[in-house]
Amino acid sequence: MNAPDKFAQLLSLTRAPFPASRKIHVPGQVHAGLRVPMREVSLSNGESATLYDTSGPYTDPAADIDVRRGLEALRTPWIETRGDTEVYAGRAAQAVDDGTRRQDRDDPQDPEAQRIAALRAQAAGLQRTPRRANAGGNVTQMHYARRGIITPEMEYIALRENTKREWMAEYLGDAERAARVRGNPMGAQLPAFVTPEFVRDEVARGRAIIPANINHPEVEPMIIGRNFLVKINANIGNSAVTSSIEEEVEKLVWAIRWGADNVMDLSTGKNIHTTRDWIIRNSPVPIGTVPIYQALEKVGGVAEDLSWEIYRDTLIEQAEQGVDYFTIHAGVRLPFIPMTANRRTGIVSRGGSILAKWCMSHHKENFLYTHFEEICEIMKAYDVSFSLGDGLRPGSGADANDEAQFAELRTLGELTKIAWKHDVQTMIEGPGHVPMHMIQANMDEQLKHCHEAPFYTLGPLTIDIAPGYDHISSAIGAAMIGWFGTAMLCYVTPKEHLGLPDRNDVKQGIIAYKIAAHAADVAKGHPASRARDEALSKARFEFRWHDQFNLSLDPDTAREFHDETLPKEVSKVAHFCSMCGPKFCSMKISQEVREFAAQQGIAENAALDQGMQAKSAEFRESGSEIYIPIHKA
Amino acid sequence: MNAPDKFAQLLSLTRAPFPASRKIHVPGQVHAGLRVPMREVSLSNGESATLYDTSGPYTDPAADIDVRRGLEALRTPWIETRGDTEVYAGRAAQAVDDGTRRQDRDDPQDPEAQRIAALRAQAAGLQRTPRRANAGGNVTQMHYARRGIITPEMEYIALRENTKREWMAEYLGDAERAARVRGNPMGAQLPAFVTPEFVRDEVARGRAIIPANINHPEVEPMIIGRNFLVKINANIGNSAVTSSIEEEVEKLVWAIRWGADNVMDLSTGKNIHTTRDWIIRNSPVPIGTVPIYQALEKVGGVAEDLSWEIYRDTLIEQAEQGVDYFTIHAGVRLPFIPMTANRRTGIVSRGGSILAKWCMSHHKENFLYTHFEEICEIMKAYDVSFSLGDGLRPGSGADANDEAQFAELRTLGELTKIAWKHDVQTMIEGPGHVPMHMIQANMDEQLKHCHEAPFYTLGPLTIDIAPGYDHISSAIGAAMIGWFGTAMLCYVTPKEHLGLPDRNDVKQGIIAYKIAAHAADVAKGHPASRARDEALSKARFEFRWHDQFNLSLDPDTAREFHDETLPKEVSKVAHFCSMCGPKFCSMKISQEVREFAAQQGIAENAALDQGMQAKSAEFRESGSEIYIPIHKA
Repeated sequence: MNAPDKFAQLLSLTRAPFPASRKIHVPGQVHAGLRVPMREVSLSNGESATLYDTSGPYTDPAADIDVRRGLEALRTPWIETRGDTEVYAGRAAQAVDDGTRRQDRDDPQDPEAQRIAALRAQAAGLQRTPRRANAGGNVTQMHYARRGIITPEMEYIALRENTKREWMAEYLGDAERAARVRGNPMGAQLPAFVTPEFVRDEVARGRAIIPANINHPEVEPMIIGRNFLVKINANIGNSAVTSSIEEEVEKLVWAIRWGADNVMDLSTGKNIHTTRDWIIRNSPVPIGTVPIYQALEKVGGVAEDLSWEIYRDTLIEQAEQGVDYFTIHAGVRLPFIPMTANRRTGIVSRGGSILAKWCMSHHKENFLYTHFEEICEIMKAYDVSFSLGDGLRPGSGADANDEAQFAELRTLGELTKIAWKHDVQTMIEGPGHVPMHMIQANMDEQLKHCHEAPFYTLGPLTIDIAPGYDHISSAIGAAMIGWFGTAMLCYVTPKEHLGLPDRNDVKQGIIAYKIAAHAADVAKGHPASRARDEALSKARFEFRWHDQFNLSLDPDTAREFHDETLPKEVSKVAHFCSMCGPKFCSMKISQEVREFAAQQGIAENAALDQGMQAKSAEFRESGSEIYIPIHKA
Repeated sequence: MNAPDKFAQLLSLTRAPFPASRKIHVPGQVHAGLRVPMREVSLSNGESATLYDTSGPYTDPAADIDVRRGLEALRTPWIETRGDTEVYAGRAAQAVDDGTRRQDRDDPQDPEAQRIAALRAQAAGLQRTPRRANAGGNVTQMHYARRGIITPEMEYIALRENTKREWMAEYLGDAERAARVRGNPMGAQLPAFVTPEFVRDEVARGRAIIPANINHPEVEPMIIGRNFLVKINANIGNSAVTSSIEEEVEKLVWAIRWGADNVMDLSTGKNIHTTRDWIIRNSPVPIGTVPIYQALEKVGGVAEDLSWEIYRDTLIEQAEQGVDYFTIHAGVRLPFIPMTANRRTGIVSRGGSILAKWCMSHHKENFLYTHFEEICEIMKAYDVSFSLGDGLRPGSGADANDEAQFAELRTLGELTKIAWKHDVQTMIEGPGHVPMHMIQANMDEQLKHCHEAPFYTLGPLTIDIAPGYDHISSAIGAAMIGWFGTAMLCYVTPKEHLGLPDRNDVKQGIIAYKIAAHAADVAKGHPASRARDEALSKARFEFRWHDQFNLSLDPDTAREFHDETLPKEVSKVAHFCSMCGPKFCSMKISQEVREFAAQQGIAENAALDQGMQAKSAEFRESGSEIYIPIHKA
């Protein structure tokens, strides 16, 4: 099968709309042209629910998509209207961009090399002519926000975060329930309704970022901040050992289908530049990278040969391609490196160890730290956001919250101040491996030293003995730190520590992290979070099986699991479940309780009542058989 | 395939010892004959680790096991030595014990019915002659404990909980690390070392229970209490819709292989009595049941036909068989039932709804509540423990922590006092579905109202939108409530709400709950918990791949996942992992950091040092190639 056929086949798997779902678009008001996509789920009782939708146009049957052409550039008119950018020739492509090492060079006799060459030629066509700020200009969303401007991106996000609150009202319960289950925001300031002005204000304060490079006009704007829905990131990327470009593009589409709000391309092998072209041009979600990975490839994998010049050139190369945020390990300072010497697991961040190696070899301060202001100048010309990397994060519970980790965190706080001086959007990366009782200290320290810049954590894993299941050991930590205030959770797949995630691993990691993020939203009391749980619970209680499946995070799996025990379609409308079987069902009986209490009028005074004796006989006559129709009363 | 062949095949799958592991036995000191089984894992560096082992003799190649004969009755000499019991004829078997409903009756023309009849005949042979306390006697572990007696069960447990602490010392780190990662016990009083006297004292106070019916002499004693390792329970059992006896026995063996400390047999279909015979006689872990399920079958599934007499007879039937604890929903009081009327999901506990239905139909107080002291008399004659059921637990986050739930919890606290008056061991069941921010209140209320009797919770699930993944949504809640003080976590499988768990679902549920329980132990600072994490992390850092796999919760899956990316055996000793490939590895570099810091002697004063410049050049000469042997320095 040739490459386009392979694409076509792969993409056909992931383009189907979700069951009983259709793509709707909410129009803007400040900016009339906006069309904010959401997923509307139709329920069998005539109701509907509107859900936040990360899947982009891929789940819209009306969208005409060709991965060789890339997605529609919806932000281009907004960017052009601002009139503060110029289109320019851009940096010339270099052979080194796709790796220079001898074993990575393409062999003209090798069919695989020919295939990659064809993809590279197509990618050159995909690449848009780059755009940058006019000389001396600043095009960051933070810059606009601080000048009081509500951009189309900000209004888009406000509408998106609200996900049509109207449908939710009836699920939020009476005053008793609302008071009982209301969240504990742990210091977050969640508005009842997200306005464009609220978005602007949060971005201006630095409490939220909108990762949206002006060279990634395909992006559907989203926000990362403690006072918004908790987001998740999925890592993809080829490596020196395995994977191909097509697989990575398909993984992107697959990842956003299941709910990835962001995707990081962590490719480390050859064809890094070409892979990224394909990914960005086809991505409706922000793409992050770790530029030091590509810079290292450019110097043949020898860390000590890295230089500021090579790194700077890589930043510009990637900024021109449209990367929305860069992980930059500028906090791995020379004096902190020896602090890791007595650790159980030393330095486990790949970027951290590259820079540690460079610092040790040259016995010089980290060049990312010493050139930080120059990096800010690049970031603001494209609106690339900082994701300040935690190169010294713990690689085991034993190393959690140690001096190396927190020394770096304090440095990231200092760098945040510098970035904000340039109006560059900034978030802070966090661990890693942290036992449950030590998680809150991470959030507290981050809030204290990083001035409320959004926190973006990897897990954390709460234990170390679960390789093969670290999506679970880390979802526990992720849910907790999300509740405490982390704005975005970087997923962990079942393959963590063991191998590269395949398609199914990506999905497993994403679902585990959607669970963690949603658990955090519910615990915080995000006003747009709980309605979905209530709608699904109501469907469950009323034996509306299809509605239960369709409102779930993964309708396919829910339906498939139900089919395994009760495969017949008739079971999907049956008033029983497989746990109890057709003769007896606890949910059925509790419906009778409701009818009983309503008949008795005893819901209010939950006390014994002698008069109930007579009613009891009456109930026994009318209600003692199991199969009363559900909607009888 | 006939039944014995099917057994033989199934059991052969689960009898293999874990890789690099052997069964060892630690001898008693107070009671010289004790042999407490543990699993010793041999590591490739010559070290070994000893792990708590729930798998029973099944993973001991030296054990001669025949499921048609049952396991060795290791406790019989202990029970006989106590001299306070009598062997007696026991209740006569009745046809009704395996269900009476017309459609459940065996058809003599049906081959399946013939197969079951053969199993039933064999089960009759399996059944031991029952034993009970001498007239007026009390044979509970609590009764002995309160009289100052350290039973063999108590010493067995003390040794088991310690899992040979000797090997752990070197993994616990220096004073800095020990202080930094020490747990937060949240009020638990974890001893540095578990003595038999400590076990006795905790049982006497009612803070821990030892589920060990005198008619289940095959059980390897274990303890459930806040000041011990957190335990997990796996539910198995056939239902009216699916499953067979053989499958359930095999699920038992499979469940304990992966770490189930307890198993509940929740069978609800036909052949309940026979299934339970097979399970108990082959179980080295305590078996719990919900007797109302079988009582309901005896009255043809009609809740209002239940009576105290039928229920009482069922308790004796099951006590004679050897069930170690009964879930008894005595707190579902009539006045609480209407409190559930406005819930989103009513009453979701099967036992709770059966009793609610009975109470409503008769308009009488729950007969389990009114006969509670008589139940205690039965419990103490066999040492069956109470698991006081939470029949009014919430079935959705919307119903969490409501008046119905907490009214029942307070009643369970009253009943605990009554049980303790009879020296009957008691634990308290808890929810269910609880958002993260509402979990701690459950533990606080339980401690406040139930006098520190062990808490035993189902999950709780933190959100409602993850059917198909509720092992994860609930592992989050389970880990948290385990940290807060819950003594045993009842697992949830991926099939929760959707269907009956198969073999793989059981494993997935157990591993998720081993993660939750271990995360809780680590967070509490249980002194026997962290060493395994450190040993695995050390193996990971030193690229001892096999050791990493073998110390993990599921060596098979860890190895299989590694094989998918790097299948060759040589990769298992390679000094790199699949994320970074052979050219660069962060763990490799951090080893160089350690050597560097050691050479420089700068670990102590983590400051810049001009003299390092010269050393830097030296390091660059000696250490800049990647493949220095790991153990060089």
